[in-house]
Amino acid sequence: MAGEAMQRADERGDAGRAVLAGIRVVDLSTLLPGPYCTQILADLGAEVIKVERPDGGDPARSIDPALFAAINRGKRGVALDLRRAQDRDHLDALVRTADIVVEGFRPGVAERLGAGYERLRALRPGLIYCSISGYGQEGPDRDFAGHDVNYLGVAGALDPPPAPGQPPRHFITVPMADVAAALFAANAILAALLRRNQLRVVGVEDGSREDGGRKDGGAYLDVSLAGSALALMSGRLDNRRARALGGGGYGAYVAADGRALTVACIEDAFWRRLCVALGRPELADAPSWATYARRRVDAERIDALLATEFAQRPRADWLDLLRAADVPAAPVNSPAEVPDDPYVAASGLLIRTEDGGETVWAVRYPARMPGLVVPPGTPDTRRAPALGEHNATPLEEIARTPGEDTR
Amino acid sequence: MAGEAMQRADERGDAGRAVLAGIRVVDLSTLLPGPYCTQILADLGAEVIKVERPDGGDPARSIDPALFAAINRGKRGVALDLRRAQDRDHLDALVRTADIVVEGFRPGVAERLGAGYERLRALRPGLIYCSISGYGQEGPDRDFAGHDVNYLGVAGALDPPPAPGQPPRHFITVPMADVAAALFAANAILAALLRRNQLRVVGVEDGSREDGGRKDGGAYLDVSLAGSALALMSGRLDNRRARALGGGGYGAYVAADGRALTVACIEDAFWRRLCVALGRPELADAPSWATYARRRVDAERIDALLATEFAQRPRADWLDLLRAADVPAAPVNSPAEVPDDPYVAASGLLIRTEDGGETVWAVRYPARMPGLVVPPGTPDTRRAPALGEHNATPLEEIARTPGEDTR
Repeated sequence: MAGEAMQRADERGDAGRAVLAGIRVVDLSTLLPGPYCTQILADLGAEVIKVERPDGGDPARSIDPALFAAINRGKRGVALDLRRAQDRDHLDALVRTADIVVEGFRPGVAERLGAGYERLRALRPGLIYCSISGYGQEGPDRDFAGHDVNYLGVAGALDPPPAPGQPPRHFITVPMADVAAALFAANAILAALLRRNQLRVVGVEDGSREDGGRKDGGAYLDVSLAGSALALMSGRLDNRRARALGGGGYGAYVAADGRALTVACIEDAFWRRLCVALGRPELADAPSWATYARRRVDAERIDALLATEFAQRPRADWLDLLRAADVPAAPVNSPAEVPDDPYVAASGLLIRTEDGGETVWAVRYPARMPGLVVPPGTPDTRRAPALGEHNATPLEEIARTPGEDTR
Repeated sequence: MAGEAMQRADERGDAGRAVLAGIRVVDLSTLLPGPYCTQILADLGAEVIKVERPDGGDPARSIDPALFAAINRGKRGVALDLRRAQDRDHLDALVRTADIVVEGFRPGVAERLGAGYERLRALRPGLIYCSISGYGQEGPDRDFAGHDVNYLGVAGALDPPPAPGQPPRHFITVPMADVAAALFAANAILAALLRRNQLRVVGVEDGSREDGGRKDGGAYLDVSLAGSALALMSGRLDNRRARALGGGGYGAYVAADGRALTVACIEDAFWRRLCVALGRPELADAPSWATYARRRVDAERIDALLATEFAQRPRADWLDLLRAADVPAAPVNSPAEVPDDPYVAASGLLIRTEDGGETVWAVRYPARMPGLVVPPGTPDTRRAPALGEHNATPLEEIARTPGEDTR
């Protein structure tokens, strides 16, 4: 219902009304963080030109085609070999019409390719240039290679670590450092656009610094995956063990039909309602389990008890019973089950697309805010470009006059 | 070094130069998503007034004091009982001077407390009002209670689910749905501020809709935790198993001294370098392990082999060896070890604060962008307010003239 209403509202609008309509992004990044950042900007109406190397392009095309399709929706695809002068000229022409450049090379590589900040901002005053790197542009680890799990380990987010002799486990279904960096980068770019508006339109004096805050509203944004992962650990970096939520009435449990549900009884009121709903009201009165702090100390016993209780009935019964009793409870969906979940189906957030005949589900910008995000409906907002698909598109067709737009 | 340079650069600036200086946020939310959203806004220079109920305030004060201290830095604290007319008047006075309201009640509750969007936007034209709820303001699940693990389960992010008879496991150290919603909400608010600028200053025609896109630049933003968790699963909702990265040379391994390290060899070049660095170059030539897709199929054997190899030397040796060989490798830090990590120490991102004599480490806005974020240095940007600390502060001292600022 909400999904239908959303779609109707969106169909009355058009992409031009999205907040970043008229903003052009040149995206040199690959894999997840940069492309997901620019997907968010695209969902807010920006025109994103994805620049890839001609030999295979973004490695995500082969490593994870479904992910690639989902986070490069509606972008233009241009294949350029930046080691060739002619292709560098093409990049320069694109940058002269751009508001934002995003790159995800290791520090120093963009400069070597002629795509560093200093060179490009000379081509396009007011350019907002966002570098997304593993450990930032400065600091002792800047040259190290890395992927998501490395940054999570540094940030203390892989806790507890695997026990000696145990097989390695990777705890995270979603690459959390990657998506955090993508979200912080999108956030930083929006903040820089706001500042550029203030300077250009209102004439606010900026605090010009040697490495940021240009008079023309341009900015250099240094986003790191390790720093973004670290930000998620704010308030969690201490000696108290087991800070991660889990256990004692907070976690996943298996019902009689083998299907799992989550229950999240942190607050004492929720715990008491759970005990009553389970038909065990006496547990709600046990002083040793009266607070969540105490229940976590005794989590193993509580969870064994809950496992026994939940094994008595099928999941659907429990969800009906617990939700009617206002206990925080929900199904554990496998990824393939998600599109059929009643909440998800009604949300209108899924976009069905295809990758070589296989269904790929992409997810739209998750906040409902008509007039700010791009409405669904056109193929361009759904399909990722083929490698070099827009190489032959005349620049003037994708270019707009520099300076025409003050956003 | 980078940290020192950053601090020097920041000390030359002042908070007034941050991009959201002059923007006032009234924050009615509790626990993590809303307060972390407004912490991001505060780090970008906004003045945040945290409104709490007088009886205990934000439950995070008692459930997780360290987290509370870390994500409420530099906010003003006002305790109001919105069921009392006098306190509602106080809220109204605050809202009349505000640009942004954030609330995290279940749908309908803000309205019952007299703090719903329609009422408040009548008090303050152009108000940007962001609701953060479990399942959004519409849709079949809107009234259900929930916490992070519930939303992750719905979104398919708790995969694989626990096996029958196994104890429940919660896979996520960081409450991922909570932080994703916080980041999307901050993002949405920045987008709405950009649009408000466009309308007010440039005079762009907006696409006025019945439920968004007001002529005065005001907006209603409906952010859900389930939707935000779902967004993280974009491109991952299908039948292919084991989509989550992990195994076969991507994960955590234990060294001879019992300390864990992460290795992330997705790309074949990294895998080959790893084999050579381990002194097993013949493995790099095994055709059955030539691609990551193949290595994941055989992950158990590969990981057993890697576990044996890594057990031969202490972690520090491996990190030196692997990083010199340009293999993605990093330590697995416990949360308490993080502040002493060389990268983290040099990053300048940590803020040391206290909670009842105990050290609490908060993390600054993780992107380096001088002139856009608040510099460190004043107590107000470090300490969370006591409950009702600014109740006696005359409104005019924290108010500015409505309409004075066009940002």
